[in-house]
Amino acid sequence: MMTLDEFQKFAHQLVDWMVDYYRNIEHFPVKSQVEPGEILNQLPQEAPEKAEDFSTVFEDFKQIILPGMTHWQSPNFFAYFPANASYPSLLAEMLTATLAAQCMIWETSPAATELEERVMDWLKKAMGLPPQWEGVIQDTASTSTLVALLTARERYSEFSANERGMAPFAPLRVYCSTETHSSIEKAVMLGGFGKENLVKVAVDEQLRLDPSALEKAIERDLKAGKKPLAVVATLGTTGTTAIDPLKPIAAICARYALWLHVDAAFAGTALLLPEYRWMIEGVEQVDSFVFNPHKWMFTHFDCSAYYVKDRQALLRTMSVLPEYLKTSTRGRVKEYRDWGIQLGRRFRALKLWFVLRSFGLEGIRQILRNHLQWAAGLEEEIKGQNDFEMMAPRTLNLVCFRYHPPAVSDEQKLDEINQALLQRLNASGRLFLTHTRVQGKYTLRMVTGQTYLQKKHVQQAWQFIKQTAREMTL
Amino acid sequence: MMTLDEFQKFAHQLVDWMVDYYRNIEHFPVKSQVEPGEILNQLPQEAPEKAEDFSTVFEDFKQIILPGMTHWQSPNFFAYFPANASYPSLLAEMLTATLAAQCMIWETSPAATELEERVMDWLKKAMGLPPQWEGVIQDTASTSTLVALLTARERYSEFSANERGMAPFAPLRVYCSTETHSSIEKAVMLGGFGKENLVKVAVDEQLRLDPSALEKAIERDLKAGKKPLAVVATLGTTGTTAIDPLKPIAAICARYALWLHVDAAFAGTALLLPEYRWMIEGVEQVDSFVFNPHKWMFTHFDCSAYYVKDRQALLRTMSVLPEYLKTSTRGRVKEYRDWGIQLGRRFRALKLWFVLRSFGLEGIRQILRNHLQWAAGLEEEIKGQNDFEMMAPRTLNLVCFRYHPPAVSDEQKLDEINQALLQRLNASGRLFLTHTRVQGKYTLRMVTGQTYLQKKHVQQAWQFIKQTAREMTL
Repeated sequence: MMTLDEFQKFAHQLVDWMVDYYRNIEHFPVKSQVEPGEILNQLPQEAPEKAEDFSTVFEDFKQIILPGMTHWQSPNFFAYFPANASYPSLLAEMLTATLAAQCMIWETSPAATELEERVMDWLKKAMGLPPQWEGVIQDTASTSTLVALLTARERYSEFSANERGMAPFAPLRVYCSTETHSSIEKAVMLGGFGKENLVKVAVDEQLRLDPSALEKAIERDLKAGKKPLAVVATLGTTGTTAIDPLKPIAAICARYALWLHVDAAFAGTALLLPEYRWMIEGVEQVDSFVFNPHKWMFTHFDCSAYYVKDRQALLRTMSVLPEYLKTSTRGRVKEYRDWGIQLGRRFRALKLWFVLRSFGLEGIRQILRNHLQWAAGLEEEIKGQNDFEMMAPRTLNLVCFRYHPPAVSDEQKLDEINQALLQRLNASGRLFLTHTRVQGKYTLRMVTGQTYLQKKHVQQAWQFIKQTAREMTL
Repeated sequence: MMTLDEFQKFAHQLVDWMVDYYRNIEHFPVKSQVEPGEILNQLPQEAPEKAEDFSTVFEDFKQIILPGMTHWQSPNFFAYFPANASYPSLLAEMLTATLAAQCMIWETSPAATELEERVMDWLKKAMGLPPQWEGVIQDTASTSTLVALLTARERYSEFSANERGMAPFAPLRVYCSTETHSSIEKAVMLGGFGKENLVKVAVDEQLRLDPSALEKAIERDLKAGKKPLAVVATLGTTGTTAIDPLKPIAAICARYALWLHVDAAFAGTALLLPEYRWMIEGVEQVDSFVFNPHKWMFTHFDCSAYYVKDRQALLRTMSVLPEYLKTSTRGRVKEYRDWGIQLGRRFRALKLWFVLRSFGLEGIRQILRNHLQWAAGLEEEIKGQNDFEMMAPRTLNLVCFRYHPPAVSDEQKLDEINQALLQRLNASGRLFLTHTRVQGKYTLRMVTGQTYLQKKHVQQAWQFIKQTAREMTL
């Protein structure tokens, strides 16, 4: 059994390895190059009976596991949305894992609860969210959105003549745009609404939810005897970071008394910049709001910031109180276990605190503005080429584009070319991009949002993309 | 902004602090002694504009946060169920946080998916679970149980004449014992079944679910036009670690075609010991099974091992496939995002791998047997006193007892005495116990399950409990 002295020795070794990892990270193949089964087949079929030396285990980590990792913290990672880490956040994770406290209720670690309350308040103020909102850290936006829809369902069932919970007479309808993240559809399924009761409303030419289409869909449902329940507006869609127009959507929700949930999972961080506050005009009407500091705010996954206007509705949805959780402080403290699905909770506020203090709001804003500026520069570059084109308006730091050699006009051929281009780029290991489809067309996505990204990485990537595309045999 | 060199310096400092923490942990007040608001009021109202030095932040961590932590890793922590950490697991958490990979799909880190498959397989074999089962790591047992009930609901809706999802004609009924964990009730609420459709079945004198009462409840529901859907059997209840009799419950589930979910969140670890395999007689009939290595298997939270018999039913419940998650390996690899609620996933298999290899199965078994033996010793001690009594049979390493001075026979008075005793014990900071009620009677719970617990800690605790009780003014 590893002793504390051995732990000390290995932990110091690990720290040096960790530093080397970050020092060299941009030279690793960004996207893992292994084949399905390649890792699995190197791992024995049975757990070892006898204890093994940590040095053996660590060696296997380096030899077997590491080649199977996609390096999300590489500055050459431009795929999906980033999942940001940072050095201060990493230090916090070390401490969180050391304390290893189960922060399910106030009493099981008062500091975890109270620090969470405070940092969620800090963020709310720094982002210009309504002062009366209250926040809690969830694990993911998937969970946050599920929690929102469950709360909307609960509030409805209180208002309805039926019993609480399942089986309303009319199907409950949830609205979002055709560009909305898959987690909305999943939440609708898991919430028992029935997949067919998610209404995907049309978008405008900028891929933003069209409020008039929303209103028509609601009217249509009302006439058909269905019950409109909730709208999910997205600030920053996954495909293209389109920003749904919150103000008219909020007005519609007010008119029909619908729950309004805002999914700002990625783009929410931009609210730290005053120049992006236009995104939340109409926010007073919003019932719940999620954004993920673990995406673009340098804080380790999992850290999803969830805000609610009406705390009581959330608590009614989530509260159960068994004997073994009754404490003498009940009623005087926040019990975050009643603010989400899981009873067990990690001490997640610590990393947010470390990040906010170590970077400072100014420091965070500066990095965000760099990312945005580099994306704008990339957009200009793309627009300046006759064989590349922008595929969607750039609103933040995601650039959607494709290679379009002037000689090719067939859309299917263009799809094939860009699919092949993406495959070739990613196989190089030099960068990692992902794709989406914009109006059916295969589109490359490049997000400039990694914590330690520098301008040179963006420039190198763009040179490499251009070169690779132009070297392809069409 | 913290540089990599600064990170290196601070990370080494932290490692030494972490080691000191563990070296001194048994001398800290186990349960935080702060008052509500005490931490909150020390934290500024606004996030800092300017970056702060890490040394300042770390100093605040030690001065402000640490006194507000309950020390779950203290060997004097006997409360709830443990939330085990261990040195190998901590090393893994450092690496996980360093890689900071978002392991949502195979492609975003093949090693994370394939290592998860392998370690879940290792555990399955080591615990004697059915070979055809397949496993996935969820965050908590709360989530695992919710996933189980959602899958049961989905399977039912496929079989029923109704549309998928919500609004079956008959209320769906879920059965568990009166001793079941609150997460079952919460899952029933969140799953939209309606709280009133959770049927809490009576227990026998050993607080185990009574199969004949279960069958009667099912029959009663059928006659009333309700639809029995699922049974949750508990191996190791939270109150007293009662073990529901799986074999007769499984037979009933087979007879009525009910989904059988097993919540072995804490006690599951004991299946590593052949002498505890009797707990799972009848397991072939089980549909889903959860146990938490983060409780009693030295692996950091969150790590909840969830097994299913019919993977397809789970996938049908959880799968959505948007364009931006389509990859060329689709169909050839496991996509664990379709095995649970959240899209985002931490690399949680690594710590399990480090633990299993660093302790070895033999090493783990030895520690479990120590814990069990010390609990047995404690039981003997209690039985040997004329002023203490056991309140429930001891099945594992949880001892349920109370102080019962011979002169006192009034039950309400005994409740008050034991409540006061618990308060006094925990206020001392020397240990931390929690309580439950057994047949309505206030009962102290003492779990001997902390990773680095030694016999002397159990003995010291028991001496202190005896002494404190006997010094009380009645």
